[in-house]
Amino acid sequence: MGFFTKDIKTLNDLFVHTLKDIYYAEQQIAKNLPDMVEKATDPGLKNGFQTHLSETNSQIARLEKVFQMHGVEIQGVDCPAIDGILEEASDVAGDVEDKQVLDAALIAAAQAVEHYEITRYGTLIAWAKMLGRDDCASILQQNLDEEKATDEKLNTMALRSVNKKAA
Amino acid sequence: MGFFTKDIKTLNDLFVHTLKDIYYAEQQIAKNLPDMVEKATDPGLKNGFQTHLSETNSQIARLEKVFQMHGVEIQGVDCPAIDGILEEASDVAGDVEDKQVLDAALIAAAQAVEHYEITRYGTLIAWAKMLGRDDCASILQQNLDEEKATDEKLNTMALRSVNKKAA
Repeated sequence: MGFFTKDIKTLNDLFVHTLKDIYYAEQQIAKNLPDMVEKATDPGLKNGFQTHLSETNSQIARLEKVFQMHGVEIQGVDCPAIDGILEEASDVAGDVEDKQVLDAALIAAAQAVEHYEITRYGTLIAWAKMLGRDDCASILQQNLDEEKATDEKLNTMALRSVNKKAA
Repeated sequence: MGFFTKDIKTLNDLFVHTLKDIYYAEQQIAKNLPDMVEKATDPGLKNGFQTHLSETNSQIARLEKVFQMHGVEIQGVDCPAIDGILEEASDVAGDVEDKQVLDAALIAAAQAVEHYEITRYGTLIAWAKMLGRDDCASILQQNLDEEKATDEKLNTMALRSVNKKAA
């Protein structure tokens, strides 16, 4: 968000604003993932980031569908939270000396991104239902399910292999 | 994090850096919570933020213990992620017209903060164990458990009352 002004008067305004926030966030994530694919050394991790890039593009398409269903213009808004999280992720990707330690750092950065998305989708789904938009909620739920699955996969990769190689 | 330079060579360096990151984050959260207590209208939410402020202070004390146990200087480092998340939270607190809608926005902002902490503590615990510091992991686990419980409480408050009043 980061753009709360007096124009937010109703829960619907808040919902639309937060939809724009996550739309901007997903686009920034899609822009940053190729760099993470490039930097990752562990083949499973590299592949995981690649898969998540395709998923992110599908998630952006689903968000566009929600905008249309809800009758509002497809639009992003600046989101200082994801900018900050990605700034950290990019710092990690840029400059850790040891490749195995870098992989561990990349997973941590990616999980911070996932958790941001998980919390925003959780909120959006709750608000959509409250606004009587179960149809929008059900599409947003698909994105939430994918984000949770990705976080779980990253967790497993970290615990089973990447952290061990880094240690 | 946001401070990844060539001085991060080992998993231990990464662990210590991330400890400094969450230490800074908790301090920023402690500084911001009184404003959220002030802005909240729903008595349960106001009380919840107040309780979380006390918890945050205990969590900071636990982190200081971990620094000491691990033999490193107690120190924070700039963390663009939490700065961005709190910038959003503060925007919310500042300028939504309707009090009930503001409460819904405050809960969403607080949950974004909780999720950032949850992901960082999860990572720190995994790394601490990998480094043979189960003692540090067990203290960090107490913070993680509290953050998860807070997120759950916020969720319940949102679904049971705050969102309904806002809608």
